[in-house]
Amino acid sequence: MDANRIWKAALVVIGDEILSGRTQDRNIAQLASWLNVQGIRLAEVRVVADDAAAIGEAVTTLAGRNDYCFTTGGIGPTHDDITVDAIAAAFGLEVVVHPRARAILESYYATRGGLTEARLRMARVPAGATLIENSVSGAPGIRLGAIFIMAGVPHITAAMLESLTGTLEGGLPVVSRTLGCWVGESEVADLLREAERGHEGCQIGSYPFFREGRVGANFVVRSVAAEAAERCVDDLAAALGALGHETVRGGI
Amino acid sequence: MDANRIWKAALVVIGDEILSGRTQDRNIAQLASWLNVQGIRLAEVRVVADDAAAIGEAVTTLAGRNDYCFTTGGIGPTHDDITVDAIAAAFGLEVVVHPRARAILESYYATRGGLTEARLRMARVPAGATLIENSVSGAPGIRLGAIFIMAGVPHITAAMLESLTGTLEGGLPVVSRTLGCWVGESEVADLLREAERGHEGCQIGSYPFFREGRVGANFVVRSVAAEAAERCVDDLAAALGALGHETVRGGI
Repeated sequence: MDANRIWKAALVVIGDEILSGRTQDRNIAQLASWLNVQGIRLAEVRVVADDAAAIGEAVTTLAGRNDYCFTTGGIGPTHDDITVDAIAAAFGLEVVVHPRARAILESYYATRGGLTEARLRMARVPAGATLIENSVSGAPGIRLGAIFIMAGVPHITAAMLESLTGTLEGGLPVVSRTLGCWVGESEVADLLREAERGHEGCQIGSYPFFREGRVGANFVVRSVAAEAAERCVDDLAAALGALGHETVRGGI
Repeated sequence: MDANRIWKAALVVIGDEILSGRTQDRNIAQLASWLNVQGIRLAEVRVVADDAAAIGEAVTTLAGRNDYCFTTGGIGPTHDDITVDAIAAAFGLEVVVHPRARAILESYYATRGGLTEARLRMARVPAGATLIENSVSGAPGIRLGAIFIMAGVPHITAAMLESLTGTLEGGLPVVSRTLGCWVGESEVADLLREAERGHEGCQIGSYPFFREGRVGANFVVRSVAAEAAERCVDDLAAALGALGHETVRGGI
């Protein structure tokens, strides 16, 4: 096994509410942060409408070229929740009621009006799938091989990720070190490029901002090698210092 | 011309900072809301890394199947800003310095240390492109046919959209009407499905929430026909009322 192998994941965000601007997505950032800790890199994301063909195309393409593919949204009880059917159709699988999902929902709704036909929709999975625990609201997420079908409501997504923590094979976690500086990034562009070239395995991102009437930037060094990232930040701070720019570890 | 034609746009969000979880994207929701007013529907979004091949693939695919394709991010002065080069390469175009962009930057930086080599990078465009005004920070956006290359910092993106307002051909704007109700969506799933079926051209989205210890949902009716949306909301409110559920116009 290659210890330096980079494990990659993709995310398909499903929902008209994101594309209409009604809802601000929070699952991209949430999944990205969680994946970092698992040693997996979020490589690409697609946001698609509540449309079976669009969901199927996105999931088959991204699952085919990444180690893992996550989806968020469209697994509730209403008519606009079509994720399970769309993914099953894309892979030529039947949709079946998962017995344990049914039992979980029966128990959850026992004191909440009972398991209606609409609620039973949330026990439907592509044939062969297993469940992802949901400690918050009963209805489980679904795992189909390397595809993870999760809820769209961020705190429910969080509960499903929590139950997956530590269960996925990954590589070395990416560490990031941030250096803040009250300087216009265009003044130090050459210096940044050279710092990146001089530290193998490190990537430097430059994120400008405008605050308190002044321009500044945070420079973020990312690497799977923590020591290399530290050295890169040290050298960058020294180079900026030599030009008279003070820097702030951890960012501004 | 078909008055009912639906105009579609796509967005490519470019940047490691989004995929690493460091930065919460705000441009998807911002662009979606702006497009609604222009009578254009945001049909799909991709988030890609600072990687020329990934940017090129996303932009050529999405520009090819939508009326408009927008990008955000990667047009600053630093080494990780590769959007212009990636798009030019994907379409087999040279990168040239745009004379008016150069003049804008010369003027902007006249009192800010002058136009350095790094800053001049922000005047580079794919051959044949025109500029998108940026009233906030000088460096313009770029229009290449139906492709709109914009900044990643949300308030600069906003300034670029502002200068494009009213200039793009679109169709009827989508109106949305929201009805809030303290009911679990699974209790009224059938009713929602029937309301959508009974009102042609209307789509109903169901967005559950948990607040103040109670479950509720907002039902959002979307249509290009304002009257149809109103009728659909009226009928939905009446149907929920008949089951004893009070509703709140405008949502909860």
